[in-house]
Amino acid sequence: MPDSPTPPVPILGGTGALGYGLALRWAAAGVPVVIGSREAERAEEAAAKVKEAVPGAEVDGFANEEAASKGPIAFLTVPFRAQSETLNNLRGALEPGQILVDCTVPLAAAVSGKATRSLGVWQGSAAQQAQEMVPEDVTVVAALHSVGAPKLGDLDEEIDEDVLVCGDKKKDKAPVAKLIERIDGLRAINAGPLEMARIAEQITPLLISINVRYKAHAGLKLTGLDTDGHWD
Amino acid sequence: MPDSPTPPVPILGGTGALGYGLALRWAAAGVPVVIGSREAERAEEAAAKVKEAVPGAEVDGFANEEAASKGPIAFLTVPFRAQSETLNNLRGALEPGQILVDCTVPLAAAVSGKATRSLGVWQGSAAQQAQEMVPEDVTVVAALHSVGAPKLGDLDEEIDEDVLVCGDKKKDKAPVAKLIERIDGLRAINAGPLEMARIAEQITPLLISINVRYKAHAGLKLTGLDTDGHWD
Repeated sequence: MPDSPTPPVPILGGTGALGYGLALRWAAAGVPVVIGSREAERAEEAAAKVKEAVPGAEVDGFANEEAASKGPIAFLTVPFRAQSETLNNLRGALEPGQILVDCTVPLAAAVSGKATRSLGVWQGSAAQQAQEMVPEDVTVVAALHSVGAPKLGDLDEEIDEDVLVCGDKKKDKAPVAKLIERIDGLRAINAGPLEMARIAEQITPLLISINVRYKAHAGLKLTGLDTDGHWD
Repeated sequence: MPDSPTPPVPILGGTGALGYGLALRWAAAGVPVVIGSREAERAEEAAAKVKEAVPGAEVDGFANEEAASKGPIAFLTVPFRAQSETLNNLRGALEPGQILVDCTVPLAAAVSGKATRSLGVWQGSAAQQAQEMVPEDVTVVAALHSVGAPKLGDLDEEIDEDVLVCGDKKKDKAPVAKLIERIDGLRAINAGPLEMARIAEQITPLLISINVRYKAHAGLKLTGLDTDGHWD
């Protein structure tokens, strides 16, 4: 397809391992990225690091609140323990019509428990909690829970994984899916409405449990699916 | 490896789609099978059907209680709504030292809800409920939740899927894994302790949600794992 200029992708919590890995991969794919962090300075540092790894990359760093408004589809990649606080702080920054892609996994590690266990979230999932917390007319889509940050963050690593995308409307999921598929080796799968994040978020502790046993970085892949043209 | 004679595999609820599919596949692989059902007659009918599909297969049919004692590793493949009743009826039949492989998925369909949603089980998972209900010294292992019954039940269909195996001890999971891997195209993955069935059981409603959207029969596969020799 002919590449129309892609608007910048804000990654809120982009100094963490997942956010940084996404920033790096999108930068490598020619997608402009805006890294957000609690402190603007740390975001700028992370942006500089991406630019060093991908010369010529369009990457900037700002405080989360400023970063959030730089593009129509923002990714939230903070750890679960920071999710609510970050969303509270973003209330004045997110605008009607924006899509917020929540990548949060409610690992029990957030409260000093095991990373192979998860916490029950009252709303059913971290993504549904996010939907409750964002301003009106901001739509939450859930995705990218199971892609390993270390792999994303190392451009020498080849990726071959599926990403479960959950959201109530296909029209909101489609642009997210297309952004995700700009990253080599990732295929975006339509997993159903946002409530399916209850399950999608659980894949991460499952993979962590498997990784411990095989000393590996397992990735999710589905067989038997013809996905061509699904998002068009 | 040299095949020592495999003891028969009781499949309790073997007249249902999943149980029948397993019986067929094991029969095709030369594994003797005992089909159990609430009514002996229906079990005998299913056994005859397997024999017709796989000439020379060693397959018998009995009432669940009688079938259960025919081999050291029994599979429970009833729908969730029948799980507790079946386990109650099996209390006198299962023997210390036996392994019961629970394949139950607590779909909301059991109470006329959606197959893309699941029910919360007090113990955390259907498998943990089973562990609570079996006689002392019977060990529950959870597996085979996500393998599609229609595919298993059609020998012309090629399978290429991973099976998550959950159980507290590797020594109990290993013989189950090896039995599962007798079926062409299935790889058994050590997913951790029995409590991980909480997640493994959720893969099924997730796949159902995906199948609806892609009009497909999606299967689970993990990438990045070197599984050679894990179960030896």
